Amino acid sequence: MNYPSQLIEDAVNELSKFPGIGKKSAMRMVLFLLKQKEHDVTRLGETVIKLRSNIQYCKRCGNVSDAAQCNICSNSKRNQQLICVVEDLRDVLAIENTQQFNGTYHVLNGLISPMNGVGPDMLNIESLLQRVQAENTHEVILALSATMEGDTTGFYLSKKLGQAGTKVSSISRGIAVGGELEYADEITLGRSIALRTPYEV
Amino acid sequence: MNYPSQLIEDAVNELSKFPGIGKKSAMRMVLFLLKQKEHDVTRLGETVIKLRSNIQYCKRCGNVSDAAQCNICSNSKRNQQLICVVEDLRDVLAIENTQQFNGTYHVLNGLISPMNGVGPDMLNIESLLQRVQAENTHEVILALSATMEGDTTGFYLSKKLGQAGTKVSSISRGIAVGGELEYADEITLGRSIALRTPYEV
Repeated sequence: MNYPSQLIEDAVNELSKFPGIGKKSAMRMVLFLLKQKEHDVTRLGETVIKLRSNIQYCKRCGNVSDAAQCNICSNSKRNQQLICVVEDLRDVLAIENTQQFNGTYHVLNGLISPMNGVGPDMLNIESLLQRVQAENTHEVILALSATMEGDTTGFYLSKKLGQAGTKVSSISRGIAVGGELEYADEITLGRSIALRTPYEV
Repeated sequence: MNYPSQLIEDAVNELSKFPGIGKKSAMRMVLFLLKQKEHDVTRLGETVIKLRSNIQYCKRCGNVSDAAQCNICSNSKRNQQLICVVEDLRDVLAIENTQQFNGTYHVLNGLISPMNGVGPDMLNIESLLQRVQAENTHEVILALSATMEGDTTGFYLSKKLGQAGTKVSSISRGIAVGGELEYADEITLGRSIALRTPYEV
C-alpha cells in the first residue's frame, strides 16, 4: 500500500508489530491518534516509553513491581510459605481476581518449549529452586496451562522440586464450571473421571 | 482489576483508549512491550509522538502530507480539474488502491451528522466550495458512504455545488461484484433496478 506520508507509514509499521494488530487495524489506530489532541498523544507515547524503561521485577518472585520487592511478597498477611508457580503476569492477575489464593507467586516468564528453543535455563527456574531451598517453602502449587508446554514445564519442575523434598501440587483439571459433559473433549472427560474427588456431605 | 504496578496500570489505561482495544487487549500489548528491547519500545513511543506533532495537511485538499502540498495535488500527470470528495484518509487509500482514478481528492474529515452534533461548518466544506470556484473545476465526484450521514452530506454538497454551476456526480450504488441477488437487501436491489445501466455491446 502507498501511504501519503512517511510519518503515517512509520507509525503503521510500528503499531502493526503488536500481536493481533495488522496493517488495517494499525491504520485505524493512526487515524484515531491524528484526531486526538497533541498533548494526549504525547502522554500516550511517553507512558509507553516509561513503562519499558522504568519497570522493575521483584527480586524474590520475578513479578513486575514498582519497587525491589513486589507488594505481594512484602505483604505479611499473605502465606509466604506457599508459592504458586505461573507462566506470566497475566496469570498472576487472573488468580488474584479469584480472591481465593493467599500465598505468594513465582513468575517463570515463559514455559519450556523445545519447539521454540526455550530451555529451562532461559526461565526463572533456578531462582525458584534456590528460593524454595532458602525459605524452606511448605508447598509449591503449579498453575500452568494445560498445553504441551505447560505439561512439560510442570513435569520438569515436579522432578526438580521432588528431589529437593518439597511438596508439589498442580491446580485441578476437569470440566469447567457451567460446562456440559457432551461438549467436553474426551481427554478432559477421561482425566476428570480418573481424578474424581469424593463427595463431602 | 488490581495491577501490580502503577506503570502497568497507566499503560493499560492509555492503550485501551484506542478504538476496539479493551483492558484485556491492552494488557496483552503491555506484556508484548515488556518483552521487547528497550530501544525498540522507545522508537515506537517516539514514532507515535512524532506522527501527531509533525503531521501536516495539504493546504489544497486537506489530505495528510509531509509537505505543504500533498504529492497527489503536486503531481502534474493527474487531472487537476477532477475532484473526488471523500470522508477521510482511509477512503483516499482505498480509491488509490483501485488504480482507477486519476484526479485529485478533497478530504472532508468527517460527515454531516446532526445526531453527533457535526454541522457543515465543522468539515472542510467551505474550502471545497472556494477551491471549486477558484480552480474552475470540471467535475466533482462524491465518494461517500451509503449511510444516513453520507447521504445527508452528499445532498448538502450537491445543492451547494449545483448552485455554483459545477457538474456533480456520485459513485454508483448497486450489487457488489460477486454479490448474489437473493442476499441483497431490498433497498440496494430496488436502487440498482432504478439506476440500471444500458448494456454496451
